[in-house]
Amino acid sequence: MAKDTKPRRPRAETPKGFRDYFGADVTERKAMLDRIAAVYDRYGFDPLETSAVETLDALGKYLPDVDRPNAGVFGWQEEDGDWLALRYDLTAPLARVAAQYRNELPTPYRRYAMGPVWRNEKPGPGRFRQFYQCDADTVGAASVAADAEICAMLADALEEVGIPRGDYIVRVNNRKVLNGVMEVAGILDPADPEKHEHERGIVLRAIDKLDRLGEDGIRELLGEGRKDDSGDFTQGAKLSNAQAEVVMRFVSAKRSVKDNFARWAGRVDKNSTAKFLIAADATDRQFQQVLGKDFTEWPEYGLWNDAVVEYLGDLVTGSKTGQDGVAELLEVGSQLAAQGYGPDRIVIDPSVVRGLGYYTGPVYEAELTFEILDEKGRPRQFGSVAGGGRYDGLVERFTGQKVPATGVSIGVDRLLAALRAKGRAGQSLQGPVIVTVMDRDRMADYQTMVGELRAAGVRAEVYLGNPKNFGNQLKYADKRNSPIAVIQGGDEAARGVVQIKDLVLGARIAESASLEEWKSQPAQFEAPRAELVAQVKRLLAQNGD
Amino acid sequence: MAKDTKPRRPRAETPKGFRDYFGADVTERKAMLDRIAAVYDRYGFDPLETSAVETLDALGKYLPDVDRPNAGVFGWQEEDGDWLALRYDLTAPLARVAAQYRNELPTPYRRYAMGPVWRNEKPGPGRFRQFYQCDADTVGAASVAADAEICAMLADALEEVGIPRGDYIVRVNNRKVLNGVMEVAGILDPADPEKHEHERGIVLRAIDKLDRLGEDGIRELLGEGRKDDSGDFTQGAKLSNAQAEVVMRFVSAKRSVKDNFARWAGRVDKNSTAKFLIAADATDRQFQQVLGKDFTEWPEYGLWNDAVVEYLGDLVTGSKTGQDGVAELLEVGSQLAAQGYGPDRIVIDPSVVRGLGYYTGPVYEAELTFEILDEKGRPRQFGSVAGGGRYDGLVERFTGQKVPATGVSIGVDRLLAALRAKGRAGQSLQGPVIVTVMDRDRMADYQTMVGELRAAGVRAEVYLGNPKNFGNQLKYADKRNSPIAVIQGGDEAARGVVQIKDLVLGARIAESASLEEWKSQPAQFEAPRAELVAQVKRLLAQNGD
Repeated sequence: MAKDTKPRRPRAETPKGFRDYFGADVTERKAMLDRIAAVYDRYGFDPLETSAVETLDALGKYLPDVDRPNAGVFGWQEEDGDWLALRYDLTAPLARVAAQYRNELPTPYRRYAMGPVWRNEKPGPGRFRQFYQCDADTVGAASVAADAEICAMLADALEEVGIPRGDYIVRVNNRKVLNGVMEVAGILDPADPEKHEHERGIVLRAIDKLDRLGEDGIRELLGEGRKDDSGDFTQGAKLSNAQAEVVMRFVSAKRSVKDNFARWAGRVDKNSTAKFLIAADATDRQFQQVLGKDFTEWPEYGLWNDAVVEYLGDLVTGSKTGQDGVAELLEVGSQLAAQGYGPDRIVIDPSVVRGLGYYTGPVYEAELTFEILDEKGRPRQFGSVAGGGRYDGLVERFTGQKVPATGVSIGVDRLLAALRAKGRAGQSLQGPVIVTVMDRDRMADYQTMVGELRAAGVRAEVYLGNPKNFGNQLKYADKRNSPIAVIQGGDEAARGVVQIKDLVLGARIAESASLEEWKSQPAQFEAPRAELVAQVKRLLAQNGD
Repeated sequence: MAKDTKPRRPRAETPKGFRDYFGADVTERKAMLDRIAAVYDRYGFDPLETSAVETLDALGKYLPDVDRPNAGVFGWQEEDGDWLALRYDLTAPLARVAAQYRNELPTPYRRYAMGPVWRNEKPGPGRFRQFYQCDADTVGAASVAADAEICAMLADALEEVGIPRGDYIVRVNNRKVLNGVMEVAGILDPADPEKHEHERGIVLRAIDKLDRLGEDGIRELLGEGRKDDSGDFTQGAKLSNAQAEVVMRFVSAKRSVKDNFARWAGRVDKNSTAKFLIAADATDRQFQQVLGKDFTEWPEYGLWNDAVVEYLGDLVTGSKTGQDGVAELLEVGSQLAAQGYGPDRIVIDPSVVRGLGYYTGPVYEAELTFEILDEKGRPRQFGSVAGGGRYDGLVERFTGQKVPATGVSIGVDRLLAALRAKGRAGQSLQGPVIVTVMDRDRMADYQTMVGELRAAGVRAEVYLGNPKNFGNQLKYADKRNSPIAVIQGGDEAARGVVQIKDLVLGARIAESASLEEWKSQPAQFEAPRAELVAQVKRLLAQNGD
């Protein structure tokens, strides 16, 4: 009970898995989102901003990590017993809104949404518990025209933010094709859709990891199971060899079509065969370059898409769902082609399945195909930055009535990282002009200077730290990345002048250290007080060149 | 265990106290925040975006509603035992950041932040549990120049978003003056600052409610306590009559100075007395108009501010803290005056105390002085939209070292409501041009049309609902607030034309129902397909006039 017992000090720490964004990290993300929003707006999508908090009930159990259906969200219980939680994506809140406002909203309802989402996952390197998403969805449109539109808009958005054509590819598939494959393999019975749900979940998640596990890894997961490098064992779907074989033909679809592509192409144009002799191990990017060329040279479109659709059509023979999926794929492809979105931008790709359980039709994702260096300095493709698909059952959870819906989610942090990798973002903020304080009593004079500068649109501030040590003021200007410092002591004030210090030039001189330059271009000069604004603007314009 | 047991459907509801924002509600807030950010940027403030989640520890117990120190936040316990919570303001996270990154950040550190905050309060009419704030703070500047700068910036920001000069007033006071009053009243002992803390809290919160309780209500709370209209009793501070008298002289300061203002003014300029004969019951707005005039006519500034400072100086005689506060007030006022911010924009006002316990020096708030009608149709002043002050102790919680800081928080929703009340916001979104679907098989043609329109910068979309009923398509266009519908059936396609329907004119005609207008200005006309974009742009430009 001693009076001088010190209270424990709280620790100044961002909670584990969370981040703080400073300066340009904020403005660059904002600039990117503004550009994306402009594209969404042009396509007729309206903004929607739901609350960050939802009832746990409304969120449902649709987290990507379905292995832990009850975990994954940050939730708490209210005094009245209700459970609330932070949204983990922007799709679940949209489904809630579409149900709640179904009588007021237009049908179809096109909306976009941007904002943070939260995942209660174990934080790890590059794995954060709060991150931005940027979604666009169309609710109430059953036609695949809505899916095609989202794919085209996604391609436009990527180009708008600065990913040039050829550096990205939007890949489209259809979940009904996969369901058809499941039917043919005997693990999906249209008359009893809940049967084999567990097995199908394992198969879906296995296929989604093709990149990481390879075909052999998937084959293990279709059978008894798979032990990973760490020794952990994942239970398999325990399919028979014949069943697994059907699924594996789907898994290897892309590779197989690549292998056969020369033959397909040759059938369409006898003289073009050589152009399509793509090695089976060609990267997606090499492949895409040929597809782009192909599309330009044969405007009748579709060599690759035709080949894929024919392969898949064979695979799902006997399944109505599968055939519907193939027909939808063809329709999406031909609508996009008619609008000029060829396979150099949007391509049918049977390797896309998307891990989420709720997709019911077309699924799509955007991949950036340029290479970056991984942690070990090896080149690798940048990878996926957006994904989505059709989910006709999410609104039904609330209303009991099927409402068709389709949409895409852009991983904002990943896309921004891509822009930085391409040198299209990552600059630091332009610092303010600093008016230094030589004479504390004349603070009002210095404030008047910055007032004039701001009125002329110049970012400017008075140094507000302790002005005693002038060196600290210049160090501050340096830390702020300031282009110019303005100095006026009592002597200058009496003579009606100011000193203007060009910090950009000063830094350059300090680097080169050539005496000649010092003499010809002084980094500091005197100007009449009345010319302060004009001289600063002149210098800023000059340094901006 | 019957197979057909239906799962319970979740309810499609925004959680109580939360809101969804649609369309223009999102874009208008964004436009307003962008304008404010531009002002903050010009003043040299850098953006900061902290995570929505903080450790409960870091947040501390600084909620405005100090009567319930442990409630007020949405928090939950992590598996590792730590407590996390959603931020309830943007100041507590800044204090954490200033401590955490103190070696990397510049000193002073000027930052702005915008985003939602969460309060776990009982929801009620107009009381929400998630709302936006927009803050600007300077950390590490002890000088009142930092406070003056924030006040000037706040005035600039209000004008930038569309609140004209004369419709707002930034009011400044200083917490040290109040502390001086507390010393004189004998409920604050500089040698033992924790003594009487409870009483001071009651006094502070009582004074902050002057508008609502009136002077009589405050007097009750300074004594035994007060029973409100509902019969609830609030404990009073139990001051003696003499003590309460000192506090009441502070409470009535503004009214008293208003009463005496003619005399003060007369002292300065014998001829001006008549101009200052302001009735004691003059509204702030009437009063402000005279102050504004006064300031323009007497550029030597300060009649009102001088009068207030003299009154307060008398009140805190004998208290060093109080005298410091008065000196700071004078300094803030004269710095602002030197920059041209007279009492028509920023005024010293002893009635400002701000409810938060952590303020240590200047406190300020922005009030909108124009009148709106309340729920009962009576005119009332719009009221406060922003507030802040100096809090030199918040960073110290983490580091043990005093770090001076000052800043303002704008209530974003209130300010947006004000803009709407002034007719400067509240429009609905411009709807897209709708290309209708007459022939489902020619979807690609319609998509090509919207593609061309978008490429020309026109917001446009294809109708993606079921196209069977053409009336539904026009109803949709109406609901979307579309300016134009484009129609092309098989006949028009064969002839290479489109029908362009001017929905704005159509609506006007439908309203006026004059046959003459119908004839002279057809709301629908035919145009060659090749001229689609040009005709739509012409019509949009025409309707925009």
